[in-house]
Amino acid sequence: MSNSKKKYSVVFMPDCVETSAEEGSNLLETAIASGVHINAGCGGAGTCGTCNILIKTGKVVGQKTANVSDADYQDGLRQACSSRVMSDLVVEVPAASRLEAAVLKRETPDSASAAMLLSGWNYSPPIEKRFIRMSPPTMQDNTSDLSRLLRCLDNSQTESIVEADFSVTKKLATTARQDNWHVSATLLKLAGHTRLINIEPSDTRTTNYAFVFDIGTTAVRGQLLDLNRGQISAQAIGYNKQIRFGADVIARINQCSQPGGLAKLQTAAVDTINELLHQMLSSSGVAHSSINHIVVAANTVMVHMLLALDPKYLRMSPYVPTISSPPLVRARSLGIDTEEHVRLFCMPSVASYVGGDIVSGILGSGVYQRPSLTLYIDIGTNGEIVLGNNEWLVTAAASAGPTFEGGGIRCGMLAINGAIEDLRLDDASAEPSVKVIGDGQPLGICGSGIINLTASLLKNGLITQAGRFNMEKSSARLRYGENGAEYVLTYAADSGTGKDITFNETDMDNLIRSKAALYAGYHTLILSVGKHMSDIDHVVIAGTFGNRLNIENAITIGLLPDLPRHKFTFIGNGSLLGARLIAFSTEVQRQSSVVASMMTNLELSENADFMSSYTAAMFLPHTDAALFPSVTTGDTA
Amino acid sequence: MSNSKKKYSVVFMPDCVETSAEEGSNLLETAIASGVHINAGCGGAGTCGTCNILIKTGKVVGQKTANVSDADYQDGLRQACSSRVMSDLVVEVPAASRLEAAVLKRETPDSASAAMLLSGWNYSPPIEKRFIRMSPPTMQDNTSDLSRLLRCLDNSQTESIVEADFSVTKKLATTARQDNWHVSATLLKLAGHTRLINIEPSDTRTTNYAFVFDIGTTAVRGQLLDLNRGQISAQAIGYNKQIRFGADVIARINQCSQPGGLAKLQTAAVDTINELLHQMLSSSGVAHSSINHIVVAANTVMVHMLLALDPKYLRMSPYVPTISSPPLVRARSLGIDTEEHVRLFCMPSVASYVGGDIVSGILGSGVYQRPSLTLYIDIGTNGEIVLGNNEWLVTAAASAGPTFEGGGIRCGMLAINGAIEDLRLDDASAEPSVKVIGDGQPLGICGSGIINLTASLLKNGLITQAGRFNMEKSSARLRYGENGAEYVLTYAADSGTGKDITFNETDMDNLIRSKAALYAGYHTLILSVGKHMSDIDHVVIAGTFGNRLNIENAITIGLLPDLPRHKFTFIGNGSLLGARLIAFSTEVQRQSSVVASMMTNLELSENADFMSSYTAAMFLPHTDAALFPSVTTGDTA
Repeated sequence: MSNSKKKYSVVFMPDCVETSAEEGSNLLETAIASGVHINAGCGGAGTCGTCNILIKTGKVVGQKTANVSDADYQDGLRQACSSRVMSDLVVEVPAASRLEAAVLKRETPDSASAAMLLSGWNYSPPIEKRFIRMSPPTMQDNTSDLSRLLRCLDNSQTESIVEADFSVTKKLATTARQDNWHVSATLLKLAGHTRLINIEPSDTRTTNYAFVFDIGTTAVRGQLLDLNRGQISAQAIGYNKQIRFGADVIARINQCSQPGGLAKLQTAAVDTINELLHQMLSSSGVAHSSINHIVVAANTVMVHMLLALDPKYLRMSPYVPTISSPPLVRARSLGIDTEEHVRLFCMPSVASYVGGDIVSGILGSGVYQRPSLTLYIDIGTNGEIVLGNNEWLVTAAASAGPTFEGGGIRCGMLAINGAIEDLRLDDASAEPSVKVIGDGQPLGICGSGIINLTASLLKNGLITQAGRFNMEKSSARLRYGENGAEYVLTYAADSGTGKDITFNETDMDNLIRSKAALYAGYHTLILSVGKHMSDIDHVVIAGTFGNRLNIENAITIGLLPDLPRHKFTFIGNGSLLGARLIAFSTEVQRQSSVVASMMTNLELSENADFMSSYTAAMFLPHTDAALFPSVTTGDTA
Repeated sequence: MSNSKKKYSVVFMPDCVETSAEEGSNLLETAIASGVHINAGCGGAGTCGTCNILIKTGKVVGQKTANVSDADYQDGLRQACSSRVMSDLVVEVPAASRLEAAVLKRETPDSASAAMLLSGWNYSPPIEKRFIRMSPPTMQDNTSDLSRLLRCLDNSQTESIVEADFSVTKKLATTARQDNWHVSATLLKLAGHTRLINIEPSDTRTTNYAFVFDIGTTAVRGQLLDLNRGQISAQAIGYNKQIRFGADVIARINQCSQPGGLAKLQTAAVDTINELLHQMLSSSGVAHSSINHIVVAANTVMVHMLLALDPKYLRMSPYVPTISSPPLVRARSLGIDTEEHVRLFCMPSVASYVGGDIVSGILGSGVYQRPSLTLYIDIGTNGEIVLGNNEWLVTAAASAGPTFEGGGIRCGMLAINGAIEDLRLDDASAEPSVKVIGDGQPLGICGSGIINLTASLLKNGLITQAGRFNMEKSSARLRYGENGAEYVLTYAADSGTGKDITFNETDMDNLIRSKAALYAGYHTLILSVGKHMSDIDHVVIAGTFGNRLNIENAITIGLLPDLPRHKFTFIGNGSLLGARLIAFSTEVQRQSSVVASMMTNLELSENADFMSSYTAAMFLPHTDAALFPSVTTGDTA
């Protein structure tokens, strides 16, 4: 008779959230169910020591772990995950155990400095579940089912008006009576009001998940987020299925003008999302019905195509998008395989070629919060760049091409299992030792591998500054292949494809064009606001390299500017960083449009400085060696 | 070259609305296009003299009509419909020419006293069209199409935030460029904000229509409203196609529990609406694309079925509806044949058996505004009754059955073409003279005809007070037919059906049961609040009798209470009256939920007083003759 268990009142401080819990309930689960978010890095295993709480009054039981000292234990310090409720309780959640302190740290690369990330935000997901015990109707109180439910919701939150989706109303009569008028309500918090978007029988508060997607021109990346714990439960990556319609956005926009073209591209994007979504559900074991929200960060062209908006005018002067702040749409209405109630939020964009992906990165990295001057570089197909501080932000897109995502490279691939992500060449023999993602046999080389290989070849003198192979150098790895001069990274016998993994001069040309476009982009942007490279306080680099971007090598080839190394921070995928923060915090979501509105776009496509700067950068590291003193002197400040 | 015509500024006072008009423009059309509503009873033919305006400054030309005196003409009085703009103008629209003053008067029966209708409201339809000239985008101003449009809308109205439907965004890029960035925006005004629901190229302000529907258990009635002119452009009526699933709501609710049953009933309601909708478009010549709104007033069961909500719990104690204030839904999502943007507003209801139809009637008749005590009776299948004033309203439903809509009567029919709506019996011979709707051959007899016939038969002594025929009376019209004793109203030779039109004792029994239920309903309601019949200041009667309810006859048979005749007002169809007002006025729409929340429901189905009162009323006029003194004395006060 579990129903006869004793119930206790538990109050969580400092927010004074009161709930009731059965005797013996896990304190971490009790906190989650009442909407109090406690950092729990190990997922409740009792090993990480991040969910420390203070028992102010009352009694809990549970083993004392090694993470709690005797003195602290005496003072009432416990780990929430291994404490069980045995009386009425008042529990203090110290600042260090609050979720927002941990979320960012846990989910950015080791190299990311916390000072270069968004600060001062609260963990409060826009999706919230509430457990509601309605009083059953009587002849004296026979108000409608919906009024009965909204009455309870209004009682439990006074700050905003609750409106119900009609789809909730449709299943309300049956759902409410399924477990004797006990239901879980899923709420979507919007500016100024709250929508009731779903209702389930009984208490389902412990399952509440969201997806975030970075829809890139080349690759789509997704993460499944546990909204109760502020954790990534699964990740997936795949090529954007739109690639079959063209490698770059221009080709795809043209395709949309064909009969049925837009529908094909929309479907391709949705198919990609659905594939990743099911991969993540399957690998995490999370139920389809536990998904309540989706956040997308993508460039403007991708957003238009996803929403089935004709992107035609994006590429015609004066480059006008149809929409820059898309409304919430029902994910299912786009073809995404979710339940009816799930809304999709698209990060707002700035201009036709400065999209929500870059807004997301600026948001997540907090560039817009700091008075110091930051150069933000997203090393991806569209090569977005932002320069600015807490007063102004200028932005530009320097179409870099897909090189850094392994595109346009004969043996290139995404940074997924089987990709060579790092390597070292023996000084004498130029024999490589490679680091493969997943540690299996290599299948190809990804962006970070390409950068590291090129820098190593240059340092070893195997290539010239113009990107030609020095064939007279004695290395068994240098040869003339089908595609001309090339370097063999892995012989067929050792590769997972049964073929040699090589890097040739065409690949090198593509890399040089890509890095030159990026360099010219930020160089032009800096000059356009009357600044110099030396004025820059921080360089924040986002990109799709996992944790493995070698800043030194990126400077060696002239991709990144030659600045003191302490100024650099690599934050990983900036799109997903901002998207996650939005899924985790209503107030960060509201900030997104503020950030977008702060940004002024500089159109590079019609800029003469950009063209000359681009030409000058078509060299390793640059035609003007004075711009890269450390590359020759070796003094990296 | 009509584009080269001179343009003038026209300012309409007292609201200070400024617009520009081409030389020679019709002043009434100019007012309509700028959202200034002027009463124009004859539709602009210059004959009714209701669109009088004062030219304060400037010059118009147009014929002086007989409706304007010489002195008034000297003072600048003109008819807007026959004046053309010849200079910059300042035009005063006097109170008497404002639309709200005329709408109610024009659209209620002759017998309706203006004092018994809603007062103090403004003509301001929730659907408004705006003509917008956007500035085309440039490299300096390449904000998104949507921001560009919303910017214009925000400029033109400061009181509320405009949000755009995603369906507008979808067609925005194409529509905006179709006529050089000149578009018409259709706005839906809601409490606190405004939605942009449609966009069309060019200026389409002159076509703006709405439908209102009264979905009754037996019959569905629709009206097509011209929102620019505050006029009914077409009307239609038809049997509710749900009748095939049962004559009363209980049978239909039961049907919904069968597999697929709810879908069948939902479809039947929608099919009925679509049939009437197309009839009205066809008879008026109004284009399908000009429809922008639908308002529905219906009982709670009909609303649940229309919205595909299972009505099961409406008939199970404690009689709980799923919803009482339905949200706006897209009409097309229900299967109604409109464009995607059209929303359907359902009048809020009070309880399972007191629906939006009765709220609509109370709203339209202004019962809730007056300190005096009103008894409101809706003579229809569900027999709703309301008693109250500006401080309290009690309500009940006394299921009367379909008699008053011609149901359950052998030769009964709706009050449509071919129905005998009135008659007189010769005192001596009892030979009838009949009045047929549409003046063709009679096809049957409608509610008002049935009441008038019964009262006449009673006065002539052809029936007893128990509703039996006095067969010994010498009248050729009295006979024994297949169904027992009956009176022949029209012989086959004179009828449009080729058969005799008769009225038999079973018909009479049904009528007596119906009127007894209604009488018992309001009698019980009055007693329940400690009042007496004599306390009632006004009796407002709503019903489906066109303009032809004979109050005297209704009292004679004991349907209406025997009160001084000046207390009675017949307002026609109360459901449609309130629905029209909502389509014509945003503020009246807001009032609807206030009215619903004022009403307290008395459940008659479990009330012992009701049952005894019902039994006592099963007599013509009543078993207690003292309750109907005037019927015997002939003194109608």
